[in-house]
Amino acid sequence: MKATTNKLVIVGVGHVGSQVLATAVAHQIASEIALIDIEENRAIGEALDADHATPFDYNANINVHKGTYEDCADAKVIIMCAGPSILPGENLDRLVLAGRNAETVKDVMSQIVTYTKDAVVIFITNPLDITTYYAANHFGYPKGKLFGTGTTLETARLKRILADRYHVAPASVQAFMLGEHGNSAFPAWSMINIGGVPANQLDQYFDVESPLDKEAIGKEVVQVAYDVLNGKGWTNTGIAMGAVRLAKAVMFDERFVGPVSVTLAEEYGIAEKVSLSMPCVIGKNGVEKRLPLPLSPEEVSKFKTCAKTVRAVLDSIHIN
Amino acid sequence: MKATTNKLVIVGVGHVGSQVLATAVAHQIASEIALIDIEENRAIGEALDADHATPFDYNANINVHKGTYEDCADAKVIIMCAGPSILPGENLDRLVLAGRNAETVKDVMSQIVTYTKDAVVIFITNPLDITTYYAANHFGYPKGKLFGTGTTLETARLKRILADRYHVAPASVQAFMLGEHGNSAFPAWSMINIGGVPANQLDQYFDVESPLDKEAIGKEVVQVAYDVLNGKGWTNTGIAMGAVRLAKAVMFDERFVGPVSVTLAEEYGIAEKVSLSMPCVIGKNGVEKRLPLPLSPEEVSKFKTCAKTVRAVLDSIHIN
Amino acid sequence: MKATTNKLVIVGVGHVGSQVLATAVAHQIASEIALIDIEENRAIGEALDADHATPFDYNANINVHKGTYEDCADAKVIIMCAGPSILPGENLDRLVLAGRNAETVKDVMSQIVTYTKDAVVIFITNPLDITTYYAANHFGYPKGKLFGTGTTLETARLKRILADRYHVAPASVQAFMLGEHGNSAFPAWSMINIGGVPANQLDQYFDVESPLDKEAIGKEVVQVAYDVLNGKGWTNTGIAMGAVRLAKAVMFDERFVGPVSVTLAEEYGIAEKVSLSMPCVIGKNGVEKRLPLPLSPEEVSKFKTCAKTVRAVLDSIHIN
Amino acid sequence: MKATTNKLVIVGVGHVGSQVLATAVAHQIASEIALIDIEENRAIGEALDADHATPFDYNANINVHKGTYEDCADAKVIIMCAGPSILPGENLDRLVLAGRNAETVKDVMSQIVTYTKDAVVIFITNPLDITTYYAANHFGYPKGKLFGTGTTLETARLKRILADRYHVAPASVQAFMLGEHGNSAFPAWSMINIGGVPANQLDQYFDVESPLDKEAIGKEVVQVAYDVLNGKGWTNTGIAMGAVRLAKAVMFDERFVGPVSVTLAEEYGIAEKVSLSMPCVIGKNGVEKRLPLPLSPEEVSKFKTCAKTVRAVLDSIHIN
Repeated sequence: MKATTNKLVIVGVGHVGSQVLATAVAHQIASEIALIDIEENRAIGEALDADHATPFDYNANINVHKGTYEDCADAKVIIMCAGPSILPGENLDRLVLAGRNAETVKDVMSQIVTYTKDAVVIFITNPLDITTYYAANHFGYPKGKLFGTGTTLETARLKRILADRYHVAPASVQAFMLGEHGNSAFPAWSMINIGGVPANQLDQYFDVESPLDKEAIGKEVVQVAYDVLNGKGWTNTGIAMGAVRLAKAVMFDERFVGPVSVTLAEEYGIAEKVSLSMPCVIGKNGVEKRLPLPLSPEEVSKFKTCAKTVRAVLDSIHIN
Repeated sequence: MKATTNKLVIVGVGHVGSQVLATAVAHQIASEIALIDIEENRAIGEALDADHATPFDYNANINVHKGTYEDCADAKVIIMCAGPSILPGENLDRLVLAGRNAETVKDVMSQIVTYTKDAVVIFITNPLDITTYYAANHFGYPKGKLFGTGTTLETARLKRILADRYHVAPASVQAFMLGEHGNSAFPAWSMINIGGVPANQLDQYFDVESPLDKEAIGKEVVQVAYDVLNGKGWTNTGIAMGAVRLAKAVMFDERFVGPVSVTLAEEYGIAEKVSLSMPCVIGKNGVEKRLPLPLSPEEVSKFKTCAKTVRAVLDSIHIN
Repeated sequence: MKATTNKLVIVGVGHVGSQVLATAVAHQIASEIALIDIEENRAIGEALDADHATPFDYNANINVHKGTYEDCADAKVIIMCAGPSILPGENLDRLVLAGRNAETVKDVMSQIVTYTKDAVVIFITNPLDITTYYAANHFGYPKGKLFGTGTTLETARLKRILADRYHVAPASVQAFMLGEHGNSAFPAWSMINIGGVPANQLDQYFDVESPLDKEAIGKEVVQVAYDVLNGKGWTNTGIAMGAVRLAKAVMFDERFVGPVSVTLAEEYGIAEKVSLSMPCVIGKNGVEKRLPLPLSPEEVSKFKTCAKTVRAVLDSIHIN
Repeated sequence: MKATTNKLVIVGVGHVGSQVLATAVAHQIASEIALIDIEENRAIGEALDADHATPFDYNANINVHKGTYEDCADAKVIIMCAGPSILPGENLDRLVLAGRNAETVKDVMSQIVTYTKDAVVIFITNPLDITTYYAANHFGYPKGKLFGTGTTLETARLKRILADRYHVAPASVQAFMLGEHGNSAFPAWSMINIGGVPANQLDQYFDVESPLDKEAIGKEVVQVAYDVLNGKGWTNTGIAMGAVRLAKAVMFDERFVGPVSVTLAEEYGIAEKVSLSMPCVIGKNGVEKRLPLPLSPEEVSKFKTCAKTVRAVLDSIHIN
């Protein structure tokens, strides 16, 4: 008997991975979910706890279990959350984690490719653009089938901030954060609109308490990550929903448009070999299409800065 | 003990109303749903049939029952679907229904206002802009608390057509149809974008098989209504989802942005007293804000044509 | 490129099939839904109308389209709703439809088996036990992979009636209707309980207005079908939810326990070759297990009566 | 304008409270959620993180915010999760927490009753039966409007264990754990059934690998709590879903039947004044009805043991 066909594997069930699990169960994106963690007891504990959520009606009878890398063989989506994260108080750039997590990526990817090159692999492990670049380019994984959540989370934050400012639902805001997942991410103002009204005209049509300060909003998006981190000790609810939303786009072949971290192919005249977030179409094959949407010169310049920053880190840990 | 507080009333449970009911049950937007129909047995039959769907897990134990206008007293949302509709083969403008349905509106609104002016009332009855104008302006109902689904359905159709053309999810398309619900509705091209890329540049960024023909697409949106009508004999799935989505925006105070039919207040230089669809913010009070977004001169001209057409019908049936 | 793996095919999109479609979209049980109907325009109309529901957020971007029997080749579930149904006023046993619908079954099954014997096929077409028996036994389809909704709907009705009587949620009622889908279905009182309290003791623990009259309740379950039919002109909401719930159990391999129509294998000492509803475990292979649960002698006797009735109809239309 | 009417307040957003939040957002049980925590920054961090989940489609635009006890004034449901919990390694009875958490309950309840006696209050804080008894009996809160999740979680665990043993969906298992939330909880075998087949006959009808060992299963239900705790460091996914399911039953007035912790009124001949879990009907008023379902003498004896244990703890911390 063939295995179930909408199977999810989660690698790493710490704060983020366990929330990915809970969100995947609640949104019913998979009928089977296998959990892999270097601490086997942690995977067992998380599987059991999820097992105790599925008996309630409104939930599906999803088969959640501790897994091994063999589970990747028939997985449709693998979400990678393994590796230590930033701790509260460490108000440092995500990039310093690079040294710590490259080794983890190597361990995980070496295992995954033993079993599959068919599954779509979604990276959350930080520093996201470093781990995603390394994983996408050094283990022979098919192009487009592996990508990072990237600025998915910053995009949600930007939408929420603009939604609150203009008193509308965040789903009614069209906005992207682009570039690096972390301190140098930037809003693509030239593409932002609410109901088709471009950013520069929003203040005319919606009630506002103060004029639009683009730079302040860009900073707020980055700062709010630290407000979450310092307030609760980690960040997981938003990113888990983001990863699950992307995974659902794969499972349902939805062709959802959003920014994810992909290896650039000289878009925007960027020569560096790096992964950064740009708008993509996400479907059953992962990144179905890359959308190098029109940016202002200033935005392109910020994108280039991201590329240099990320390339420098890659170089410093000897990843070409 | 007060009655449940998220109560929905559906007036008229023919093809549209019964589908509104099924969709409301599936999306769990209310804990109590009362059905009013001049054929009492029809309301009983629909309530019973829905009653036989709610025992299945995944559904909530929603209290669906035949109602009377007294049920409006503590309703949060009332969806009005009563009145005969267009039949297949009658390839006629919705406006000819006006004479038939004004009387129905009078009967229904006279009853509703006896019991409540607090509920948000969402009109679906055709010809939509005629019935909505009449209901909103001649029964003392508070401004903004009564509106019509208007071009909500045409907007969904336009999004689907553009999504199929550009191979993306329709939810990733920002687009509005505006004006009259019916043959003279028009796409607001100047506000349409996918991921911030304006309509005129879409062909450059997405794979297309033929150049964008705006006029053809505008016509296709109108024509597809007849393809549905002639194919299945009526139109209900799309409009029911549209109405339920608006009702949920009210129930959850979501401030969703979309075009709905409201009485114009001289927006776009339109002097006629009419209801037409323009983008609005929908929240717990119904229309929380009207958004006279910037249109091109050509679009304004189409809007004015809609106004004249609708006003002429209103005049012909002596509604001032 | 491999096709999507959770694909649903609906055969026949009249009142029931179109509601199965709407319910399947709302509950997101499939990422692709193909519609087959002898009236091609009807399938096109229904697909378009559903297409206009999917752009709304809360819905997935499900690919709904007119299909052909080729679509069965990679379907996971096929729901069969084709064939004329009972009309209001015809207060007749479903069994008289037999002659009308056997031919339809032959046409449909001959096509399906050309393309697949892997999909799980769920029958709704009436007279359910006749069509299911014929389809399951005369076209070489694998045992267990084809079954009928059977008394799924009567079971929901019984749960609702008991839930209303005892003032609890229907999902908290454990109850089955068994036997024939139609006038001779009977409640399996010996298995009925609420929270483990058997039927005979319920009146002691819950507030009731009158003593439990088992026979009256059994009749009410059968009668309410006519109340729905005569009230609204057809029956579709409840049965559509039932079929979708069973399909979801297959899609998610849930091992849901409920009564469905299967060919009896001499359970309860029934010698006749017939399909009737008995409790089964529903999972990815369809009927994973049959559960000939303990019935009282009186219940077994009713089951035997069902078998004789259904066998007589099969004989009369020369199906062995 | 009145505030939204389906408002949830969560008191305490540690591991459990934050998961209640995430689950409430995913299941959309409220349109507004206020978070109260003695560490204000934690509440802010959690609200922000949830804020970053709501912009994704499929989620509603729920208003999540840091709150104060004033938010209780118009809340429909308050879920109480405040207070320290058991740590891994502390393989101790939940009852030793009593001393630690009674003070917390006093602080919280004194505040709540200042603002409302209308909201339904659901307790999760451990030791559950101690905190629930104290809160329900010493602050003038209306009877039935305050109850504890009690053995809701153990019941889910028991259903999962039986479902795995008998290869069916847990939702198809009718089972309750009763008594104390913690080490002395016991399965009410005399009410357990699958599809109406009582516990003692299950092995005959379902495939099993070993004979039913009731005592072993009862112990496994209690032990698995420690497997979760020791594996992941805390227990939150299952209990959060349980609390949200109960809250939804209140919000939707569903009359769901399940065991929750209520102050006994001499049921089962128990003279002690204690809160323990027995089956109840949960609706808009909280506990709508208590169901002292028939237990075997052995089960009654276990219930009495629970009562003595819990009363002893209450006495030891001087709560009468």
